[in-house]
Amino acid sequence: MAEQKKNVEQITAMDVDFAQWYTDVVKKADLVSYTSVKGCMAIRPAGFAIWELMKAEIDRRFKETGVHNMYLPMFIPESLLNKEKDHVEGFAPEVAWVTKGGGEDLTERLCVRPTSETLFCDYYKNTIQSYRDLPQLNNQWCSVVRWEKETRPFLRSREFLWQEGHTAHATAEESHERTIQMQNVYADFCEQTLAIPVIKGQKTEKEKFAGAVDTYTIEALMHDGKALQCGTSHDFGDGFARAFDVQYTGKDNKLQYVHQTSFGMTTRMIGAVIMVHGDDSGLVLPPAVAPVQIMIIPIQQKKEGVLEAANRLLEALGDFRVALDDSDRSPGYKYAEQEMRGIPLRVELGPRDLENGSCVIARRDNGEKEEVRIDDVPFRVAELLRQIRDDMYERAKKRMEERTWAARSMDEMREIFSDRSGFVKAMWCGCRECEDALKEELAVTSRCIPLDQEKIDDKCVVCGKPAEKMVYWGRAY
Amino acid sequence: MAEQKKNVEQITAMDVDFAQWYTDVVKKADLVSYTSVKGCMAIRPAGFAIWELMKAEIDRRFKETGVHNMYLPMFIPESLLNKEKDHVEGFAPEVAWVTKGGGEDLTERLCVRPTSETLFCDYYKNTIQSYRDLPQLNNQWCSVVRWEKETRPFLRSREFLWQEGHTAHATAEESHERTIQMQNVYADFCEQTLAIPVIKGQKTEKEKFAGAVDTYTIEALMHDGKALQCGTSHDFGDGFARAFDVQYTGKDNKLQYVHQTSFGMTTRMIGAVIMVHGDDSGLVLPPAVAPVQIMIIPIQQKKEGVLEAANRLLEALGDFRVALDDSDRSPGYKYAEQEMRGIPLRVELGPRDLENGSCVIARRDNGEKEEVRIDDVPFRVAELLRQIRDDMYERAKKRMEERTWAARSMDEMREIFSDRSGFVKAMWCGCRECEDALKEELAVTSRCIPLDQEKIDDKCVVCGKPAEKMVYWGRAY
Repeated sequence: MAEQKKNVEQITAMDVDFAQWYTDVVKKADLVSYTSVKGCMAIRPAGFAIWELMKAEIDRRFKETGVHNMYLPMFIPESLLNKEKDHVEGFAPEVAWVTKGGGEDLTERLCVRPTSETLFCDYYKNTIQSYRDLPQLNNQWCSVVRWEKETRPFLRSREFLWQEGHTAHATAEESHERTIQMQNVYADFCEQTLAIPVIKGQKTEKEKFAGAVDTYTIEALMHDGKALQCGTSHDFGDGFARAFDVQYTGKDNKLQYVHQTSFGMTTRMIGAVIMVHGDDSGLVLPPAVAPVQIMIIPIQQKKEGVLEAANRLLEALGDFRVALDDSDRSPGYKYAEQEMRGIPLRVELGPRDLENGSCVIARRDNGEKEEVRIDDVPFRVAELLRQIRDDMYERAKKRMEERTWAARSMDEMREIFSDRSGFVKAMWCGCRECEDALKEELAVTSRCIPLDQEKIDDKCVVCGKPAEKMVYWGRAY
Repeated sequence: MAEQKKNVEQITAMDVDFAQWYTDVVKKADLVSYTSVKGCMAIRPAGFAIWELMKAEIDRRFKETGVHNMYLPMFIPESLLNKEKDHVEGFAPEVAWVTKGGGEDLTERLCVRPTSETLFCDYYKNTIQSYRDLPQLNNQWCSVVRWEKETRPFLRSREFLWQEGHTAHATAEESHERTIQMQNVYADFCEQTLAIPVIKGQKTEKEKFAGAVDTYTIEALMHDGKALQCGTSHDFGDGFARAFDVQYTGKDNKLQYVHQTSFGMTTRMIGAVIMVHGDDSGLVLPPAVAPVQIMIIPIQQKKEGVLEAANRLLEALGDFRVALDDSDRSPGYKYAEQEMRGIPLRVELGPRDLENGSCVIARRDNGEKEEVRIDDVPFRVAELLRQIRDDMYERAKKRMEERTWAARSMDEMREIFSDRSGFVKAMWCGCRECEDALKEELAVTSRCIPLDQEKIDDKCVVCGKPAEKMVYWGRAY
């Protein structure tokens, strides 16, 4: 137990310092390591394996809606970036510029893509001729670069991995529908796969994507009461098409502009999983994205029959992502490591269990243990993994609800945000000035105008003018 | 047929102009399109789907040998790139430099990775402490940038997609073994999955990777007689470890340098598939990497029962990657398109076939057609897909053998390369001057020192001095 303690002691408790707890977890669970490249992290095998599972789940959902993967260049010539006014204003300040290649100064500098709307417009201009070429439903998995000043592993880094979907449609109705469809795909992925409840809504004018008509978002609440934007889906109307002259010949033989969307989700979702589900013993992974779902840990493994039985169990559990820790470290050390890494289930198997023909299964999410007959383990494990996902989701949902308050006045707003953090539902008149005032005084931003509206009051929480929209406010990562 | 002709006419015949034929195929099969980013291509969905299947096959093979995926930054600070002398000399002339970020000049410029040995050394220095941390078996799927002057889709472009494996071991024996193991993985992938026969060998000092002790390669022969390097595996010994000070504490409690390897395969393999298997009707895809393996094409599809039967067949073939072309274009047009896209099997199904309870299956690789009872189609298709891979491999192998000659003198070398292209086996003394002389006079390079040695003569084909090594020479992409 001394060894176990030592391992766990190195994590700062959540309540003591949440930011430090987060840093400790990503390092102790071997998810990332620092690099000599300022602001960029190394995603280690244990971290990348989580991302691979997330990718597979997102990619499958995309493909079911007809999306195809493809790949465009990582560089954007400056003249291309400059074509859409709002877009370049939003992104130009935070890009990295390539100015030399092959030993020579470039005649036109290239930015490393911060996002690829401009490249997709260029691509669509080259490949779309008639209505027969629509819709175009594409996606790419790649990395993008945004020159952030302050960085944190998974949450904000100068380079990050993501997917960016880009579609082109014949009509405004179709691009709108696709935007909502992808928001729903993201919400389903978060809730079903990651067990993270989300609020679906629309961004305000101030918070929407540079160049979009509308931005839809899903927002989640972290353990410290801060909000995290988890995935956004943008409707561009024909704005980009006009800027890039992307036209198609309609059935009526007339030239028309296409309507476009884009949607993205990033490695930041690994950060979301850590901050929604983690605890003071480390990571707690939802079973669907756990690289190892079950760790078998033998007790007194040198005793006759123990390792043999453990190996038989390993084989019997072949339908799951299962591993056996038969290293020469103590069971206590192995328990602490399995907990740190967030492995959903632990199977303990020792000489006494063997005598009884049973073993002990321990859940990572709530610490519950149960004795199970060895023959029943595969069946029971399948049940438990489903149950764990459901319980993790319900706990996170309950916590989010407990940390969601309604405010009818600035005084109520001030009171809530003075000693708590969470979502605050409040009415908003719709003007930028009130949004700015809240940001300035309380450091909160509008997270979204939720789809599920509630009439909390009939006047704006800031200026007192008539208000029809209810907004979720919060402090965000 | 007029429509079909028109479609096919747009491909230049291979024998007329092989380079133009290649360009026609990649464009007409919708594999790539040009972009506004000089030297960089857009990989379209039809091309990217081939890469996704290749990735899955390579990735599976890697994981079976214990390799884990991870991700390192795309930027390399200049000081890091400069640490290993041979390596920086090899790559510095062809890198792209980021000099500005977030509106400011960088204090140290960053190159966009041309390959990531330096970053992995940095990573290993941070994460390897003792012999318990070895071996490290890692890989990343990413894009790299090399500032090429002349570019061709898939074969040579300023940015390309690849995997780069990087491993660290306790001993020189282990790193050597891993190098050979990965060469074998590549050869197996090429031969089994892509039906491309390869020559396994070692690179000469001149041709080896910048910074490597030994480079192992697999080389294939394209339809025009030119060689293509398909995958390389490098043994670094402890050279990089010394340059980057990557040490571990051994079991004897002494500090020792690790021994490293790296190995890479790229989207150039799509080019290899095109140039080994393609023909004057377009692409011919090996079944294992064909995004669509079977295209069902209904004949007189408006006749009663035809589309229904085609849809039933589509469902019955659900274990394969199958599609049904029920568009309103003519069967002839559809055939030409299916051939252009290289889809291995076509199922033709019309009213007359329905009366007989049969359909026609046509092979893309050799044009053979056969009538098959509808109930037998799933079984027969499985047989045919296996047969197609085997036949494609045998044909490619026979062609490679027919285009491999032995030369015992410079006169023989000159005679062969004056009107033919292919592999020439010849003895070599081992000196750089003879290699340079062959390059200068005949524009041929040493492809590899093959593992399967043959004693063709006892003297060097260039200088006449005693020679023990037989080398494959050729003109290469």
